[in-house]
Amino acid sequence: MSTFKTREVQAFRLSPGAELVAELTAHCEQHDIHQALILGLGAVREPEIGGYSFVEGVYHRLQLAGDWELLTLNANVSLKEGRPFIHPHVTLGNSAGEVRGGHLFSAEVLVAEIFIHVLEGAPLERVTDAETGLSLWPVE
Amino acid sequence: MSTFKTREVQAFRLSPGAELVAELTAHCEQHDIHQALILGLGAVREPEIGGYSFVEGVYHRLQLAGDWELLTLNANVSLKEGRPFIHPHVTLGNSAGEVRGGHLFSAEVLVAEIFIHVLEGAPLERVTDAETGLSLWPVE
Amino acid sequence: MSTFKTREVQAFRLSPGAELVAELTAHCEQHDIHQALILGLGAVREPEIGGYSFVEGVYHRLQLAGDWELLTLNANVSLKEGRPFIHPHVTLGNSAGEVRGGHLFSAEVLVAEIFIHVLEGAPLERVTDAETGLSLWPVE
Repeated sequence: MSTFKTREVQAFRLSPGAELVAELTAHCEQHDIHQALILGLGAVREPEIGGYSFVEGVYHRLQLAGDWELLTLNANVSLKEGRPFIHPHVTLGNSAGEVRGGHLFSAEVLVAEIFIHVLEGAPLERVTDAETGLSLWPVE
Repeated sequence: MSTFKTREVQAFRLSPGAELVAELTAHCEQHDIHQALILGLGAVREPEIGGYSFVEGVYHRLQLAGDWELLTLNANVSLKEGRPFIHPHVTLGNSAGEVRGGHLFSAEVLVAEIFIHVLEGAPLERVTDAETGLSLWPVE
Repeated sequence: MSTFKTREVQAFRLSPGAELVAELTAHCEQHDIHQALILGLGAVREPEIGGYSFVEGVYHRLQLAGDWELLTLNANVSLKEGRPFIHPHVTLGNSAGEVRGGHLFSAEVLVAEIFIHVLEGAPLERVTDAETGLSLWPVE
């Protein structure tokens, strides 16, 4: 278990047209954020989501068309090979109120209101898990 | 980007029968909450949700019947015309485990367990976006 | 309303194969966590979810088969009969991006990356609600 103190809480809106995951990663690199909790809401266009099959050992990817409300962006930041790495999961709603969701690979930002709870303390590092090949925190 | 410190974290249950969005707004006004992150869970009755169409420039509204588990209330608080304004997104589950979600316009509270991470610092203010007409934070 | 300060923020990964709700409860007991906000993401196997029917006064339970992305774990910790009690709601995605969700009764952990925002202050205690029979925080 890692124990952290709050460094600060940041709030901001991402630029429309930006790619959400890349933009958040660049933000974390620029502001020396090595460990954090990210929450966000808004709307995105043409998100690519997916789920990891533990049976097959592969990610199933799904490209969604059109515009979606970003109902939850639930992500964490930790280090991978010494650099900030974002693990983002989302739920998305369409205009009929139907919901899709998964691991977020990419999405074009329409509106993204982001809170980052920036933490300080000995950072969590992702390492390759021997069994699954996934990049995971150690279990203590 | 706005940077905040934690003022406090509040936890409470909303009164059954109250309208969720109005009650949270009144709470923020009463407690001088100008900038915050709100998370909640519980159950609501007859929620009205929706999604904004960036193509058409209008909100599509959807009135759901009956009772729904409140799986996520993911909301932020900032200022709009000098007063606390809540931007709430929700995911909702029915008794078959099916999920709907969107921007939350209103819902009757059955049970609502709320956490407000109250922040202090120079507040974010919403201003009318020239392109969409939406009330948004400035992009920096 | 209860008002808290942050004691610390914990981040950790649960052991694969563990039962998620029992493991989190044990963690809170072991670390004297009486009041907290829990957020998590990852993947789980064969989750049992449900929703409470306020009309019938019973929980409808639903056993889901297979593996699911844990899109949101949105939970709170408070005291019930003097011991830490976790109230967990989840949204879950399958490999087609379809989402189910509800109150979480149990799930086998595949990967669970957990943040606990540990709070300190006079704890919230759950008491049996006369009207519904549910174990709830007092409304103030």
